[in-house]
Amino acid sequence: MRASPEIEALMSRLAKLPGLGPRSARRATLALLQQPETRLQPLVEALQNAARTVQTCELCGNLDSQNPCLICRDQTRDQSVICVVEHVGDLWALERSSVHRGLYHVLGGTLSALNGTGPQDLNVSPLLQRAEKGDLKEVILALGATVEGATTAHWLNEQLAPLGVKVSRLGHGMPMGGALEGLDDGTLAAALMGRRELS
Amino acid sequence: MRASPEIEALMSRLAKLPGLGPRSARRATLALLQQPETRLQPLVEALQNAARTVQTCELCGNLDSQNPCLICRDQTRDQSVICVVEHVGDLWALERSSVHRGLYHVLGGTLSALNGTGPQDLNVSPLLQRAEKGDLKEVILALGATVEGATTAHWLNEQLAPLGVKVSRLGHGMPMGGALEGLDDGTLAAALMGRRELS
Repeated sequence: MRASPEIEALMSRLAKLPGLGPRSARRATLALLQQPETRLQPLVEALQNAARTVQTCELCGNLDSQNPCLICRDQTRDQSVICVVEHVGDLWALERSSVHRGLYHVLGGTLSALNGTGPQDLNVSPLLQRAEKGDLKEVILALGATVEGATTAHWLNEQLAPLGVKVSRLGHGMPMGGALEGLDDGTLAAALMGRRELS
Repeated sequence: MRASPEIEALMSRLAKLPGLGPRSARRATLALLQQPETRLQPLVEALQNAARTVQTCELCGNLDSQNPCLICRDQTRDQSVICVVEHVGDLWALERSSVHRGLYHVLGGTLSALNGTGPQDLNVSPLLQRAEKGDLKEVILALGATVEGATTAHWLNEQLAPLGVKVSRLGHGMPMGGALEGLDDGTLAAALMGRRELS
């Protein structure tokens, strides 16, 4: 015998979320059921609030309760530099590091022959429109250091270069705090080629 | 700048669940927001269904959508053996292993001088009432192998023994698949004292 269907349903819903497995879903389900007032109901409300308010920003593709999003509205940010990322999660990661003070553009993926993702499947036209307006100084391609990321970067560069926009990509090399012997050959080669003279 | 308050609220609600941390809560939030129809709404429904139906079984303390719970109702189970556990999660763990074919009783904790948990804080009277009825053959104390677990087992034995019920506890020793050198002294001592002659 197993738990009741309602408990099983909740557990399997939670277990399907990325970042959770069957074990953590079980623990979470138990905690939710044992504290319905302080855990379950507030979670339902948080989910419903988010579902009601959160939408995709029409300018950059970020998720926010405002449209355009808070980043696109922020006039203190450098409007002339756009950082292009694959997913909203990448945007959030960059925002946590607080190093980019310009705007963003979320592609929604990368070109991939394997997955059949072509240019028409990516969110590109708003970026090109902003580049055509002529007030863009730089587009930073913060895509994954993968074959798909490099292909997409190459293709985007071909679209943006004729519009007179400077296009750059993230630096490759050793991750901070990383040990040399743990690195793969590709990273080691990139780190060696990207070496800087000590000042 | 951070995400919108609705997104932050959802993230922090999820991060507070046991089994999740800030990182998995972020990944889960993103997945929920990106697939509202297939992930977020079904999760809200699963939560609401569970909140509406799940209750504590008045006989054993299990969580189920029926009261008495499916286990207590199951006439194919041995009604004369009750396995006493601290929490519902322990009951679920035993049910997954399918070794216990009797009933359960959830205490809701252990006696603990440190936490100020006394006999009056535990769910004990339904168990004693069942023992007093006289149709119980054995009570298996499946409590944690901790000081609190042992104290509680000792105290429960004092309550149950006068009623003529056989009281047992789980065996202590090496966990299956465990390596000897990884075991603590207490477990090694318990394993040595609990040795069995090879047949």
